[in-house]
Amino acid sequence: MKLAVVGGGSTYTPELIDGFARLRDTLPVSELVLIDPAAERLELIGGLARRIFARQGHPGRITTTSDLDAGVEGADAVLIQLRVGGQAARLRDETWPLECGCVGQETTGAGGLAKALRTVPVVLDIAERVRRASPDAWIIDFTNPVGIVTRALLRAGHKAVGLCNVAIGFQRKFAALLDLAPADIHLDHVGLNHLTWELGVRRGGPDGEDLLPRLLDGHAEAIAADIRLPRAVLDRLGVVPSYYLRYFYAHDEVVRELAAKPSRAAEVAAMERELLALYGDPALDEKPALLARRGGAFYSEAAVDLAAALLGDGNGGGPAVQVVNTLNNGTLPFLPDDAVVEVQARVDGSGPRPLAVPALDPLYAGLIAHVTAYEDLALDAALRGGRERVFRALLAHPLVGQTDRAEGLADRLLAHNKEHLPWA
Amino acid sequence: MKLAVVGGGSTYTPELIDGFARLRDTLPVSELVLIDPAAERLELIGGLARRIFARQGHPGRITTTSDLDAGVEGADAVLIQLRVGGQAARLRDETWPLECGCVGQETTGAGGLAKALRTVPVVLDIAERVRRASPDAWIIDFTNPVGIVTRALLRAGHKAVGLCNVAIGFQRKFAALLDLAPADIHLDHVGLNHLTWELGVRRGGPDGEDLLPRLLDGHAEAIAADIRLPRAVLDRLGVVPSYYLRYFYAHDEVVRELAAKPSRAAEVAAMERELLALYGDPALDEKPALLARRGGAFYSEAAVDLAAALLGDGNGGGPAVQVVNTLNNGTLPFLPDDAVVEVQARVDGSGPRPLAVPALDPLYAGLIAHVTAYEDLALDAALRGGRERVFRALLAHPLVGQTDRAEGLADRLLAHNKEHLPWA
Amino acid sequence: MKLAVVGGGSTYTPELIDGFARLRDTLPVSELVLIDPAAERLELIGGLARRIFARQGHPGRITTTSDLDAGVEGADAVLIQLRVGGQAARLRDETWPLECGCVGQETTGAGGLAKALRTVPVVLDIAERVRRASPDAWIIDFTNPVGIVTRALLRAGHKAVGLCNVAIGFQRKFAALLDLAPADIHLDHVGLNHLTWELGVRRGGPDGEDLLPRLLDGHAEAIAADIRLPRAVLDRLGVVPSYYLRYFYAHDEVVRELAAKPSRAAEVAAMERELLALYGDPALDEKPALLARRGGAFYSEAAVDLAAALLGDGNGGGPAVQVVNTLNNGTLPFLPDDAVVEVQARVDGSGPRPLAVPALDPLYAGLIAHVTAYEDLALDAALRGGRERVFRALLAHPLVGQTDRAEGLADRLLAHNKEHLPWA
Amino acid sequence: MKLAVVGGGSTYTPELIDGFARLRDTLPVSELVLIDPAAERLELIGGLARRIFARQGHPGRITTTSDLDAGVEGADAVLIQLRVGGQAARLRDETWPLECGCVGQETTGAGGLAKALRTVPVVLDIAERVRRASPDAWIIDFTNPVGIVTRALLRAGHKAVGLCNVAIGFQRKFAALLDLAPADIHLDHVGLNHLTWELGVRRGGPDGEDLLPRLLDGHAEAIAADIRLPRAVLDRLGVVPSYYLRYFYAHDEVVRELAAKPSRAAEVAAMERELLALYGDPALDEKPALLARRGGAFYSEAAVDLAAALLGDGNGGGPAVQVVNTLNNGTLPFLPDDAVVEVQARVDGSGPRPLAVPALDPLYAGLIAHVTAYEDLALDAALRGGRERVFRALLAHPLVGQTDRAEGLADRLLAHNKEHLPWA
Repeated sequence: MKLAVVGGGSTYTPELIDGFARLRDTLPVSELVLIDPAAERLELIGGLARRIFARQGHPGRITTTSDLDAGVEGADAVLIQLRVGGQAARLRDETWPLECGCVGQETTGAGGLAKALRTVPVVLDIAERVRRASPDAWIIDFTNPVGIVTRALLRAGHKAVGLCNVAIGFQRKFAALLDLAPADIHLDHVGLNHLTWELGVRRGGPDGEDLLPRLLDGHAEAIAADIRLPRAVLDRLGVVPSYYLRYFYAHDEVVRELAAKPSRAAEVAAMERELLALYGDPALDEKPALLARRGGAFYSEAAVDLAAALLGDGNGGGPAVQVVNTLNNGTLPFLPDDAVVEVQARVDGSGPRPLAVPALDPLYAGLIAHVTAYEDLALDAALRGGRERVFRALLAHPLVGQTDRAEGLADRLLAHNKEHLPWA
Repeated sequence: MKLAVVGGGSTYTPELIDGFARLRDTLPVSELVLIDPAAERLELIGGLARRIFARQGHPGRITTTSDLDAGVEGADAVLIQLRVGGQAARLRDETWPLECGCVGQETTGAGGLAKALRTVPVVLDIAERVRRASPDAWIIDFTNPVGIVTRALLRAGHKAVGLCNVAIGFQRKFAALLDLAPADIHLDHVGLNHLTWELGVRRGGPDGEDLLPRLLDGHAEAIAADIRLPRAVLDRLGVVPSYYLRYFYAHDEVVRELAAKPSRAAEVAAMERELLALYGDPALDEKPALLARRGGAFYSEAAVDLAAALLGDGNGGGPAVQVVNTLNNGTLPFLPDDAVVEVQARVDGSGPRPLAVPALDPLYAGLIAHVTAYEDLALDAALRGGRERVFRALLAHPLVGQTDRAEGLADRLLAHNKEHLPWA
Repeated sequence: MKLAVVGGGSTYTPELIDGFARLRDTLPVSELVLIDPAAERLELIGGLARRIFARQGHPGRITTTSDLDAGVEGADAVLIQLRVGGQAARLRDETWPLECGCVGQETTGAGGLAKALRTVPVVLDIAERVRRASPDAWIIDFTNPVGIVTRALLRAGHKAVGLCNVAIGFQRKFAALLDLAPADIHLDHVGLNHLTWELGVRRGGPDGEDLLPRLLDGHAEAIAADIRLPRAVLDRLGVVPSYYLRYFYAHDEVVRELAAKPSRAAEVAAMERELLALYGDPALDEKPALLARRGGAFYSEAAVDLAAALLGDGNGGGPAVQVVNTLNNGTLPFLPDDAVVEVQARVDGSGPRPLAVPALDPLYAGLIAHVTAYEDLALDAALRGGRERVFRALLAHPLVGQTDRAEGLADRLLAHNKEHLPWA
Repeated sequence: MKLAVVGGGSTYTPELIDGFARLRDTLPVSELVLIDPAAERLELIGGLARRIFARQGHPGRITTTSDLDAGVEGADAVLIQLRVGGQAARLRDETWPLECGCVGQETTGAGGLAKALRTVPVVLDIAERVRRASPDAWIIDFTNPVGIVTRALLRAGHKAVGLCNVAIGFQRKFAALLDLAPADIHLDHVGLNHLTWELGVRRGGPDGEDLLPRLLDGHAEAIAADIRLPRAVLDRLGVVPSYYLRYFYAHDEVVRELAAKPSRAAEVAAMERELLALYGDPALDEKPALLARRGGAFYSEAAVDLAAALLGDGNGGGPAVQVVNTLNNGTLPFLPDDAVVEVQARVDGSGPRPLAVPALDPLYAGLIAHVTAYEDLALDAALRGGRERVFRALLAHPLVGQTDRAEGLADRLLAHNKEHLPWA
């Protein structure tokens, strides 16, 4: 089994490698190719990756290359994890929306649109080359904004699944709070990428007993602290919104917080420099503790599980039911069939099939429908370009919604992303 | 043909009477009953109504009563035009939302929710009594918020249609700008009550030539001034949003305007006092000019046309195609069937059947879906009461959307409407 | 020694009575007259007051009257503690400024101006009647806004001193934190009423060792919690701003908090009803615990000390140096001589003489100068009336400062205070 | 008479040269040295300057140099007009404050502080070298923020006067509206640089008839349009605030405008490129029309008049009374003597002596005092550096005033100005 990781030079990669090493029974990888245009950095990461495999006795081979076409050749699955423009672009995404009184964030709101515009064409190009080099390969997209990128991939006919670590993070958190094994926790996880709510917490499987009432009864404070919303919100809703809902439910407060602080991108950039320095140490053969603070917890578990399920039964397979980003196809009947939703799905070699979702509370459905309409226009802008399309996508976003703001944000988005948008 | 007007003591009523008088060929009313609990005021309005009919030689009889059941007995149609709590309640609707940074308006946002909560039970009670006294009568609801009230009526099984004067106002305005007869203008009017866009302006009928490009080409400034949005918005969208979209597209600017000015309700209350003084003059036998500034332009034309179409063919009938509030039933496929939409419909004695609407731009569909979800929760709160339901409806509204705001607004809504909400 | 308390029917009064009882050695009152137009309430309070004196064995006589002129006749000192318009007016002061995005508070900002406009003429009238009935009596003003009211009194030539419990509150708090007796703590307290900073905390007297660095070193968290500002503010400033500075230093955050909550006035009104019910119990002969939550802590200590110092030497006298509101007269050289400042002063029978204040940091001086200018215009508006003067005072306030806001606030102030402003 | 212009390579310079040419009778310059480190640009400007002198028959010599010490040697007056960091720094000043909800402007608010921090040390260094090379030379500072820079110069003992074109702009505007010669208009101009009000418009001289009431009566609309404030503001105040007061009186509206638009710096940078291209044309021998849109109108008139008055009687002299930035010395008694005010002053070879200013309305005095305190702390931060001083200056500014904002602004100011602030 050959896996390729596009963006393999990321500082995240050791997290992924560590997962492949630990979970080799679930996913018996024989060759792992790390692909990245940044050759020097790639060597650094590749070296550490090999030392991690060696230490843990993983028999698989790790190679590195900056040649995408060669790298993905013959791969069974290709993970795409990249950031067009790097931390510098992220820093800008987190900054200029604040000038218009809007949240500065790299996946939500105007910053998320900027990232989508930069990213979709790059990922589509990669996917096209994967299709040519390895037509049967599954594409697993971990590149943000996962919802829009996956929608772009699926619309172009690619064999793709979108992956995010929010659900697995909740699964582990809830399991710990309830003193259960993670595998015993199944989430009624519904929505769009970075716009989800846990409507139920099932014991043992999708039809198991709902432990959510008990969880909220005993641990509402801990969960509220985790998602940084007032505990009263959990009490009122009776469900657990993801951390990203904070950008909606407490938008103005987040704006004020961001206005009073330096950007998180600066902090991450510092951490990346520090991580790279650590990675260069030839004595290091495990992921350093610092990496945990980098974000992306349990990303490797999620990726291994998903790849195992997609690549099939013969390999032992991961848990059959997982949270993925895939075509709606009636799962949420109020959304277009070709929207991409983030829900529980049964995954096997033929791809994900969403589990049925009961009628959704209008409190969540309304916001989901609104954001889906934005995603549609965002994808249109990413594919076809033009300030008018950018303006329309912004106006369609529930966190923008006002014409003056959309004008100001559109100007800034273009001014700050000229180098990444050939049409701008 | 007998018509009853519930809320007949309104200062609007002479506008309606004037329409009945002018348009008696379209709608040959033989008896008109004005019903209102405010007996003294009713007498004043009734007297003027009779003088208007007399002056214009209308042969119909006008009666007045404070006994609802007697008044609606045997009516062919019942118009409901009332304001629970009067201008005082409206003043509050326009005020307290500002304390939370939200628009203060009696049909949109938190103020609109307050009005819905006060109004739905009252209108449902009236409708129930109409059903008992005159089971075949059509109920024409002009009471705001028309969308939610009509949804309540239809859900309870009433023979009801919701009516608003936004569309007819645009029709007259556009006709004047294009130098055409109003009847020659058909609007591709789509959305929810007070959340609509004119997507086309058809000459002669629903399938006629689309004059909208020409209209925007020559008259964008005039239309922009009318809806109080920047002309650039018309240029960018290429459609005409209703005046009420301003509360969304320019929300923060409206809040600032309202914050810098006394309330419009105070102004209307003063105008009402002045109107009542004029109405008392026994020499007055036409609607006074001042009434035009009261709002509600062309309401009588719209009401006459609708009643004529509903009450049927034998009577000559009004234009068969009109803009009404009625069940969605798949017209906008992304909304529930039992949502109430405001669209063009073919109207006859069996009620309105919406014309087909082409696939809607996500820029409008997203917002419509979001507001429909709010309306669902607002109706739930109106029917079942409780602070939690009020909170949920507020949080679901795209102009609120934040938990802190929803908390503050919920407290204020309840504090300011105690006398009208038995459960509060 | 005869003391009169104007507004003696306040629910605060038992706090004051309790102080007179406990501190009878400091201030040997022989007659205490409670004066209030609300006769029934006055009887209730008067009864409890007598029971408190009786229980503590105070030999003084307590009388009650609604006849102001009779009550103040022969008094040595007259305390004025009243609230024109009661809690209802306060509720409004706390509410309508929020509509314009400004803090709603009864002593600061636009609400404070409303209170000043309502209060100054009433207090001036009382003072005039005191002057006639008892020309040598000292007037101690505890009525807010104390700074403006005291300025009005002094400008009219009255023998008046303004008193606030902020300084004594800090003194007690700091003493507890430092494990010292309150009398050992002298504060370098500088500014205007409700706009003060503790620049030093002296041991033993005005020239004692400055304990502030030690206090901040060990107890910054506790103090920050008390004044509800981030601890970092204390670290940066190195001085302790009063709780009221929060309305400046964290204005927008306070607005958001207020917007998310019901008004404190409603809470206080409920507490007052509860207190009055308790007071009516003939078995109650001490101040109930609930009173502590009513605010005004240590008011009685401050009042007793001040009265003792003013009424003189023969009586043993209170501490000679106290924080009072009195004429600037060069104390802060950048303010007009006739401004009223709140500073440490040596108080004896001839009144207060402020201690010298070292050159003030521009960080505080600038804001003090700005607010003093506002107070000047506020007093002008209170004395002469007129919307223009109200507008000017609002525009001059650093928390308003913008013309649109000042317009909107001026309209609302007048609309909500018509009954108390004969000229409005 | 020798004059030196530091920053002579500015695109403004041709405006100045044109003035020297036109007004050579007032100021008979024999040598004019343009000094600028940007040698190439300086040559371009120098060439055009010589052609302008030639065309107008001015006998003076124009030289250029990048050697400051040589250039100022023997100068009678040195004009300093520079922008540390150029348009790029200005663009940043106009941008990052918006992230915190504050106006982005290069002389007012947080952006103005950034400019002060960058500029003060540079100008002080230049002044020191002027003092060494030409101890008797007058320094005329046109470098913003003029108030703070002039205060720095005077505190360091330099022979300096600060100059701004706001007053002369109003003089010309009012003269045109009143159909009078500019020389006939004397302004009761009071305040700080960029924080001034015209309290009177005198005919013929400082004691002439006040034409302001007549001016406002007939031309309030035109003036309001000029300063971009609502006409009602002029009606209410009865005086004319400078355009810069808009950043205070309409702060939030300006923020919204800026948020909806690209930055003016980008526009100015484009204009500068265009101007430089024009200047390079050897056929061009007058200032191009485009320069008028660059800002700085009448700067040359103001500079010529001031230099003429300072350099003395023998030379014919300009009008004796001019608006300048100079030491307060009791002119505004509520400010420190060493504050720098912008007022009418009698100017001769000994420097400016401010005319007496009547007692100032608290409506203006309060704001002036507050901003003066800020300027004091801003100068302290500029001279001594350090984040704490930056924080304190920001907190002291009436447009900031809140600790959270001051924190966020301080971080951004430092992050965006590292290259210009050695201590940052």
